[in-house]
Parts: sequence; C-alpha cells; structure tokens
Amino acid sequence: MVLSGNGVVAQSGGPTAVINNSVCGVVQEWWKKQLQGTLYGAVNGIEGILNKDLINLSSQRSEFISGLRYTPGAAIGSCRYKVKEDDYLKIINVFKELNIRYFFYIGGNDSMDTANKIYQLAKNENFDLRVVGIPKTIDNDLLYTDHCPGYGSAAKYLATTVLETSIDLKSLMTKNKVAILEVMGRDTGWLTAAASLARRNENDAPHLIYLPELPFHKESFISDVEDVYKSVGYVYIVVSEGLVDQHGNYLSFNKSTETDSFGHVCLGGVGNTLQALIEKNLGLKVRSIVLGTAQRSAMHFASLTDAEEAYMVGVEAVRMAVAGKTGLMVTLVREEDEKYYCLPGSIELAKVANKVRKMPSAWISADRKYVNDEFIKYARPLLQGEVPIPICNGLPDYVSLEDTKCRVS
Amino acid sequence: MVLSGNGVVAQSGGPTAVINNSVCGVVQEWWKKQLQGTLYGAVNGIEGILNKDLINLSSQRSEFISGLRYTPGAAIGSCRYKVKEDDYLKIINVFKELNIRYFFYIGGNDSMDTANKIYQLAKNENFDLRVVGIPKTIDNDLLYTDHCPGYGSAAKYLATTVLETSIDLKSLMTKNKVAILEVMGRDTGWLTAAASLARRNENDAPHLIYLPELPFHKESFISDVEDVYKSVGYVYIVVSEGLVDQHGNYLSFNKSTETDSFGHVCLGGVGNTLQALIEKNLGLKVRSIVLGTAQRSAMHFASLTDAEEAYMVGVEAVRMAVAGKTGLMVTLVREEDEKYYCLPGSIELAKVANKVRKMPSAWISADRKYVNDEFIKYARPLLQGEVPIPICNGLPDYVSLEDTKCRVS
Repeated sequence: MVLSGNGVVAQSGGPTAVINNSVCGVVQEWWKKQLQGTLYGAVNGIEGILNKDLINLSSQRSEFISGLRYTPGAAIGSCRYKVKEDDYLKIINVFKELNIRYFFYIGGNDSMDTANKIYQLAKNENFDLRVVGIPKTIDNDLLYTDHCPGYGSAAKYLATTVLETSIDLKSLMTKNKVAILEVMGRDTGWLTAAASLARRNENDAPHLIYLPELPFHKESFISDVEDVYKSVGYVYIVVSEGLVDQHGNYLSFNKSTETDSFGHVCLGGVGNTLQALIEKNLGLKVRSIVLGTAQRSAMHFASLTDAEEAYMVGVEAVRMAVAGKTGLMVTLVREEDEKYYCLPGSIELAKVANKVRKMPSAWISADRKYVNDEFIKYARPLLQGEVPIPICNGLPDYVSLEDTKCRVS
Repeated sequence: MVLSGNGVVAQSGGPTAVINNSVCGVVQEWWKKQLQGTLYGAVNGIEGILNKDLINLSSQRSEFISGLRYTPGAAIGSCRYKVKEDDYLKIINVFKELNIRYFFYIGGNDSMDTANKIYQLAKNENFDLRVVGIPKTIDNDLLYTDHCPGYGSAAKYLATTVLETSIDLKSLMTKNKVAILEVMGRDTGWLTAAASLARRNENDAPHLIYLPELPFHKESFISDVEDVYKSVGYVYIVVSEGLVDQHGNYLSFNKSTETDSFGHVCLGGVGNTLQALIEKNLGLKVRSIVLGTAQRSAMHFASLTDAEEAYMVGVEAVRMAVAGKTGLMVTLVREEDEKYYCLPGSIELAKVANKVRKMPSAWISADRKYVNDEFIKYARPLLQGEVPIPICNGLPDYVSLEDTKCRVS
C-alpha cells in the first residue's frame, strides 16, 4: 500500500490560528510512518508547486516542527491563487518530475475543488497519486464535517473579545453606549453566531446578532437597537461582514465593487454603514470594533480543542494516504457521548468542493436576530482549553521558518 | 493620624484591563488596616457621589473583591461626567452627610483635576478630608509617574496583536499586503509606540509607526509605504487615532466635528483615511484593524507586572491617606537596578491635573516614522508576565457586582 515516492503539503487561503497544527500533524506522522521519501512544503500554497518553490519539511529540526503547534499564520506560506485550467497539467508534471506521490492540501472549499481536480487528472493520466484534503477555515462552512479546524479558536477569541469589551461598555456611564463588532464571514454566519457564547445572563451582550444567511432590514434593525437600548441601557451588536439587504446586495461601506481572484467580493465596512444608521436615526453614539485578521491569528488565546483537532486531521491525512486512500478530505465526526470528542472520518473531495454550508435555520432564533440553544450546544465544546505558548520578553515566542529555511529549488 | 469616618473609592474615564486591581488594593488595604468606617464604591464615578449612588464595598465577600484582580472594565462603574463648578460643593456636602473622610479617585489627568479641586474646597471648608489620586490610563500620559497602570496591559495586547496579524499578513501571498492598525491615544503616542515591541528582526512588522506628537505629511507617508513595500514585500502600519496634519487638524475620517463632554474630539477612522490614500496613490489593497475598546479591556492577555502595579498603587493610596497625607496622587518610581521594579511614590495633584505627558522626542527615531531603543528599553519591562484568569466553558470567568450588589441608597 505504501507508495515509494515523495510528498508535498500545502496551505491555502486565509490562515487560521491553528493551521500549522495540521502541517505539524502531517510531518510528525510522516516521520512516525518512517516513509522513505522527502516531505516537501509548498511555499505559498499551490503557487509553490507551480513554481517548484519547495521546502524540505521532513529534514527540518523537530523543535521547529513541534513549534508549529503554537504558531499562528501559514508557516510555509499560503495564497489565494485561482488555479487555471492549464495549471493542473503543470502541477501533475511537477509531481511526476519530483516523484511526488502524496499531496496534502490544507484549505477550504475552493482548495478542495483544486485538490479534487488534481486527483481526477492524476487518475486520468494513470499517475499514482494519493490526494487528501485537510479542512481548515474560520468560516466553518465546509460540508460533511461536524466543524472545521480554525473555527473554534476564532470563536473563542471573538467571544472573549465580546465579553471583555461589553464589560467595558457597560461599566462606562456615557451616551456612547452602543458597540458594533464586525465579524469575518463572507457567506455564512458561523463565526458571527459564536459571539453569542459570551452571554451568561439574560441581558448580557451580545444583544443583537445579524447573520448573512438572513436579509437585513434597516427598519427592523433600527427598532431592534432602540428596543434593547430602552430595556437594557446599552446595546452590543455583532454583525457579519457579509450582511446583505433584501435584494442580496452587500451592505458594506465602500468596497462592494472590489473582488478577489476568485470573484468573491472583498468585504469590510458594514460596521460603518450600521453605525451611520444608528447615529442618524437614534442619535446614539457608536463605538466600532473591527478585529480583522486578528480573528484568524489570535493564537495567544486559541482553543486547545481546536488545535488538537487541527493536528489530528493532519495525522489522519497521512494515515489515509499511506493506507491507499485518495480523493478524500478528512472530516471531524462528533461522537455521541457525555463528554465531547471527535474522531476523524472522510468524505469525497468532489462532495465538498466549492460547496458552502450555511447556518441551519433551525439554529437561528425565531425573531431572526439571535441564535438559539441548539447552536450554543453545538459550538460551546469547540472553545474548550487554551494552547500553552512559550513567552519571551512578555510576548508569544512563535517559531519561523526564516531561521531554519532550506529551500529545494 | 487615622481619621474616624468612612471612605469612598471611585473609578473615572475609560476603564483599563487592570483598573479593578486598584479598587481591590484599596479595599484589601482598608480591611488590613482594620479601619472602622465603611468603604463605599461610587457607582459610575463622580456621578455616584453626586447622586449618592454608593455601594458598600467593605462588606462585600472577599471572593468578589479578590476576583477584581482578574476582571476588566470598571467594576463599580465609571463615567465621563465633566464636574461643574457648583458640583464641588455638592460633593463636599455628600461627604459631610455621610461622614466620608477618605476619597480615592482612580483616573487620568482630568480626574486628578477633579480630585485636586475637591481637596482644595475641603481645605477651604475646614473639612478634614484625605484625597488621594490613583493613576490609571492606557494612554500613559500622566506626568511625574514612570508610567501609568493600564498602559502595560494595553501595550502587551497591542504588540501581541501586531505580532500575530503580521505573521498572518506575511504568510499569505496576495496583493493584499498592507495592514493598518489604528490605536487609541488622543494626544499622545505611547500606546501606538508600544506596537514596536512586536519587532524581533530587522524586517519584522510593524514597519511604520505614526504618532500624534509629529505632524503627518501625506507625501512622506505615501513614499514611506512604497519604500517598505519595495524592500520588504509587505507593509504593516501602526497609527494613532489622534494623528494630526501640519495645521493641527485631526486626520480622522468622519467624526472630527464630534466632541465629548470635556470638549475632547471623539476620534476613530484615521485608518480609513490612510487606507484611501494608499489605495489611491499606490494601488495596494489594505486591511484595516480597529481594536477599539478591546485595547483597554483585554484582560485575557494582560500584563502581570501592570496588574500588580495597579494593585500596589491602590494599596499605597490607603496607606498614604491613613498616614495623614492628602492632595496627592500615587506615582510609580522605577528603581535603578538590574531587574526592573517600581516602588510607589507621590506627587501633588495640582502638578498632574490636566497636564499631558507627550512621548519624549528623544525616543522617536530620527526619520520620524518609528521609535528608538530608548523607548523599547523603557516599555519592555511593563509587559512582563500574564495574569492568571479562571476559565469557565472555555471563556474567562470574570466577576460582576451584579451578583453581589448591595446598594446603599
């Protein structure tokens, strides 16, 4: 079953706090299986394969590899490159040239599409290649997996920020008693919904949560804010950057015309739009918070559960590939037990490629401005535990490939 | 020396992650000294005194009081109320009515002015009152103290965020390679400058730091950004919300007309202005991060050094008052030693009232777009250590007065 040859692991799309845990899992399992070939890391994802810009990961010092377990960002580099049709053959040719027989691709639904096409082309070419996808996204929008590595850490950081900034907001007696937190999430509200985990008592923040799954109505919004202000005395609003109006248009401030290389609209600024609405219609001052990429990189308060699962799916990918499996993505399967835990499973890449898993409407509250206990029950276990990180000079002491780099080409 | 009577402690202005440490220090030292009177907490700062909205702090459960050591926000409430001339007599009358002989006021330079006026009026009225100010501000802009409690924690969170988001930025190969982080600080750049602590190697982020102490030149800014982009490949910019142009006008986006009750301009939005400048002139995409009040409430990664000093100045305030001192603010005095430590000192309230301590120009680099090693040497020790916080359900388990509240009036 073990193919003689080399392997390559690549990271794709927006990094997460724990994406390097998956790389670490792949490398350490590669070592453990005592595979003879070299395990490469593709510098900046698929671009590293196209450009043969590869790092020998299997010869790295074990201290660096284990340091990946507490280091955010994409340690071997990531990209948002949209693979073109004629790139696929180039990729297969690079694999043939370097005798790469294992391809591990860490990413979201776009990346699973790329992985699937590489898998299909290799099959058509009768090139024996094991392709295994490793899920990763703070958006939590992949199908057929209970949740996605990266989500739990982003959710934990986000809910903590809501908790802390709402204590601040509540404790300061001013007119400035409205806060808007803008949350990442292009098409789905999974991360935005996680803000609800900060709430402990009925009147606690967040008070209003707006998801991209539901069209936004300005009039209802203004009256929602007014109602909370009157009954609670301050208002904490959490809103997804991907909020759309009844016509499906993004509410974001000034960037609706920009798109990335996948044709996805680049968002950011919806907080400004809502702030203006509140100030104009209710005369309340608003404080906006835009955490931006801190949401996906805050390893300093990441979820240990999430980090361990990100590591596990990396390990499992190697196990599956070595066992002869290909064309699959590793999944997380939640076990029915008193205590939460997940086991690894798998699904065909074709089934997750380019698909988006939206928040189930059954988990959105009837008044459409919050989530319900079913969601809380689902999400709470994903935030448990903290990742121990070494500290140097009062700041996290993350590892970097720069110090240990040995490029192949 | 010990006056027979009650005491009141109040929190003022924007909270910090560690402001409750000072309240805790006051209460625990009050208990330790076995003072006979009641120690009140003024609900929402000076407004609580004016309205006789007081909490009996000295009768609170010790578990709640010690929980203040890891709880952000202003636990007894804060305000931005501008004390009017005829309020001072009202305050003194409340003190007389309730036999309050000790007044501890935790705040910044505005609050020290208020404390000083109360002190002066009590003296004129021959009312024996001990007034001691306790420094607090993430802005770090009080004179005559080495630094201000609250600053170290904000600096630690900020530098950590720069470190993590810059690793994210660097690791993702896109055109989207410019980040702007907007930092709190109306008139001074102390907190903005602390972002420099994230840098470990020459080309590390942050690359450019703009302080309100120096007028901002658009042309130099654009060429600074271009230079870094060409030489490093990505640009991380940290900018104070209080940035002004050559004419002294705030650069902030759309709020320059708003003022708070002190007549201070309400800032926010300078990141948007700079983002537009870069996108228009250099065609680079920019990611903005606006941490907002998370900067002053992120207890989940606060500085232990800062928390301990905030506690110490609270303790010292009671010691000073009991020893008969009044009209003073507690200060932090850095000792000349191999190992960093501070001892408490004191200064007349009149000397710090309404004064602003700017960043020394000797600590700003010659090219005016960074800080130098003198600043780093000053700031680094203030970030050391992490505050241990209890966790419940994966999130910080902060205490709240709501559960234990026993209002006096």
